[in-house]
Amino acid sequence: MRMVDIIDKKRHCQELTPEELQFFVDGVCNGTIPDYQTSALLMAIYFQDMTDQERADLTMKMMQSGDHLDLSSIDGIKVDKHSTGGVGDKISLPLAAVVAATGIPVPMISGRGLGHTGGTLDKLEAIPGYQVELSEQDFIQQVAQEKLAIIGATGDIAPADKKIYALRDVTDTVDSIPLIASSIMSKKIAAGTDALVIDVKTGAGAFMKTLDESVALAKALVAIGKGVGLKCLAVISDMNQPLGYKIGNSLEIEESIDVLKGKGPADVTELMLTLGSYMVVLGEKAPNEKVARQLLEEAISSGKALDRFKAMIKAQGGDVRVIDDYTIMPQAQYQIELPAQQNGVVAQIKADEIGVASMLLGGGRQKAEDQLDYSVGIELHKKVGDAVQTGESLLTIYSNRKDVSDIKELLYQNITIAEQAAKKPMIYQIVD
Amino acid sequence: MRMVDIIDKKRHCQELTPEELQFFVDGVCNGTIPDYQTSALLMAIYFQDMTDQERADLTMKMMQSGDHLDLSSIDGIKVDKHSTGGVGDKISLPLAAVVAATGIPVPMISGRGLGHTGGTLDKLEAIPGYQVELSEQDFIQQVAQEKLAIIGATGDIAPADKKIYALRDVTDTVDSIPLIASSIMSKKIAAGTDALVIDVKTGAGAFMKTLDESVALAKALVAIGKGVGLKCLAVISDMNQPLGYKIGNSLEIEESIDVLKGKGPADVTELMLTLGSYMVVLGEKAPNEKVARQLLEEAISSGKALDRFKAMIKAQGGDVRVIDDYTIMPQAQYQIELPAQQNGVVAQIKADEIGVASMLLGGGRQKAEDQLDYSVGIELHKKVGDAVQTGESLLTIYSNRKDVSDIKELLYQNITIAEQAAKKPMIYQIVD
Repeated sequence: MRMVDIIDKKRHCQELTPEELQFFVDGVCNGTIPDYQTSALLMAIYFQDMTDQERADLTMKMMQSGDHLDLSSIDGIKVDKHSTGGVGDKISLPLAAVVAATGIPVPMISGRGLGHTGGTLDKLEAIPGYQVELSEQDFIQQVAQEKLAIIGATGDIAPADKKIYALRDVTDTVDSIPLIASSIMSKKIAAGTDALVIDVKTGAGAFMKTLDESVALAKALVAIGKGVGLKCLAVISDMNQPLGYKIGNSLEIEESIDVLKGKGPADVTELMLTLGSYMVVLGEKAPNEKVARQLLEEAISSGKALDRFKAMIKAQGGDVRVIDDYTIMPQAQYQIELPAQQNGVVAQIKADEIGVASMLLGGGRQKAEDQLDYSVGIELHKKVGDAVQTGESLLTIYSNRKDVSDIKELLYQNITIAEQAAKKPMIYQIVD
Repeated sequence: MRMVDIIDKKRHCQELTPEELQFFVDGVCNGTIPDYQTSALLMAIYFQDMTDQERADLTMKMMQSGDHLDLSSIDGIKVDKHSTGGVGDKISLPLAAVVAATGIPVPMISGRGLGHTGGTLDKLEAIPGYQVELSEQDFIQQVAQEKLAIIGATGDIAPADKKIYALRDVTDTVDSIPLIASSIMSKKIAAGTDALVIDVKTGAGAFMKTLDESVALAKALVAIGKGVGLKCLAVISDMNQPLGYKIGNSLEIEESIDVLKGKGPADVTELMLTLGSYMVVLGEKAPNEKVARQLLEEAISSGKALDRFKAMIKAQGGDVRVIDDYTIMPQAQYQIELPAQQNGVVAQIKADEIGVASMLLGGGRQKAEDQLDYSVGIELHKKVGDAVQTGESLLTIYSNRKDVSDIKELLYQNITIAEQAAKKPMIYQIVD
């Protein structure tokens, strides 16, 4: 088999066989296929796309190129959630707890933040003592016992994807649906879950800016999942403005716990219940979403969901006092208000730029090796559609530096006050 | 400027600026652009094509990446010919001489053969003593004095093209019209000619198999030439069967001299006169092709064309006795006939496979470093449309090995005798 012939087939829009995709993935991993041939194939895939069969095959070959978890020793249908990433998106934290409270095992492998997007692991590390690195054995044991765990990747997950992703980034082949979808799914499948609900974000702060693109990606992800025997469903949710009111690591833990206490923001609660109800149905603890939603609401009101979150913190070495006392997490030295400069209605809060502001305060990473300041961030007081008067605070900046004039300027540039605002829905569409 | 942005522009079908193409060509030459980015751009060009302006700009940047000749010290309009390559294509040899006989300086930089295609330099080296390597100064002096010279490339011609070509070969981006055309033209423009007639071959033995592809390439070549101020025109000629009767190095010199003596095969003579008449018009020695053709026919009948060929051989150190005595060139030990196996009409002689047969006899190269046997080759006795009877010789194999059963088998497989034959024209179309 020759790589140039594989490129030629794809260039002429012919379907690659599982053997050809295996040859490609093997060659990428062991270095026998040079990068210039890989990038030529990636560009040909960008233009010619891949069939559902090719996408599923490529995903499985990339998954098999590295370590993957076997969670079969845990009883029940294991259900995970994946998000394509957004700003203020702390949904994994209350979601894992509330779903676990219904008896479904939730084994979550999460990531760290980069750029304007935060990372679930970073948020958890704002809780003193919380350990995100667990051995495979401890992870399995905790999920079996407590029904949930949120940890970082163990072992070498999908090394083929890592190499291909690095090349895509410098050869302008990032925004290719089959490549995005196979990259995401190879890693999720490696985590060993039985079912998966995918939160595909759409809008200004999302990777996919338009609803059409988001639906296309959601369909691709679900098709791959089903193609490899995973129970799978996607929810398209809004990421034009940040999710919830709080952006930043300590701040998002606070808001997550508020949600589990039944006093969280409406949008976060709504998204949690939507994603959660589909997880509960896939996990076969309810016959339909309506019943599932009732189960989840009961788990909140009864305190069982909060109890699961507390149990996870305890199991992973974190200080459980955080449930009742947020001040045990790092606190920012300064709280600076951003007064509205005119009367009107908030028409736009550009999610990605609010994420950048939080990152610039020290709450996110510009480069992978950057150290985080857990205490900083932004707390919105107004969201899109809210009326505001001149001088009223739009938001509070939590900072450890006194002069935040650069941050203020960035925020003013990305928050629009107008005469009226068009409110966007939280949930656009379900793709299954 | 970043290469990833250049790839992105091309991927989105936007026109690259001269500065961006300069950045690309510079980066390829000095190694600052990695091969994986170059191959991604090449694949994007394959799918998105290039505008006439981009093609001309890329050609000039590649040309300027290396050495290029300045022939301005030679009086008159210098006219060259380029061929996309075929089998039995010795046309450069009589053509240079007959055009030079009209007073037009013909500075020809030719190449060597590879695979089924022969090379003009290899053929000339069948003449004892002929030197294809001349200094730039000697080349210019000879063209000024004798009106013609055929030599190999001097200096480092279009190194950017060399690197890009090597990458195209292994990334399946060879058959892209803008890349083929800019590659050819960058090298021809580096040779310093004022005008160029391009012989674009079409058919089974040509790089471009269909007339449509050949016309597309011809248009691209002419557009680039005109775009950079070169007087330029293309002739689409047949390469379904070999050109003329003789294939092989000594054999093709014989046939070339026969043409100059006015007793060459009709097809070679016709192609020579067609290409030559356009060269004479571009060289402004005749107001139109009809007059030009008369000039060329006079140059043959008067012996002036043969005299120019003799002068070139002498100037480049070759043994001029070859004009009257072909046996001073290497002669094959065996002449083996190939008898027809049935009655009928020759319907097909697959040019590329006849070229392969000559190569396998030792007359061509499988690899660039192979040594040639000038004496071997094939002399056709029948061409497409000729009637033949069982047992009558189709061709003579000139060989230095006695057992040529493999060659015979290959030849039988690629010569078709049928009840009738469709004769193809020699010249299909002029593109200007």
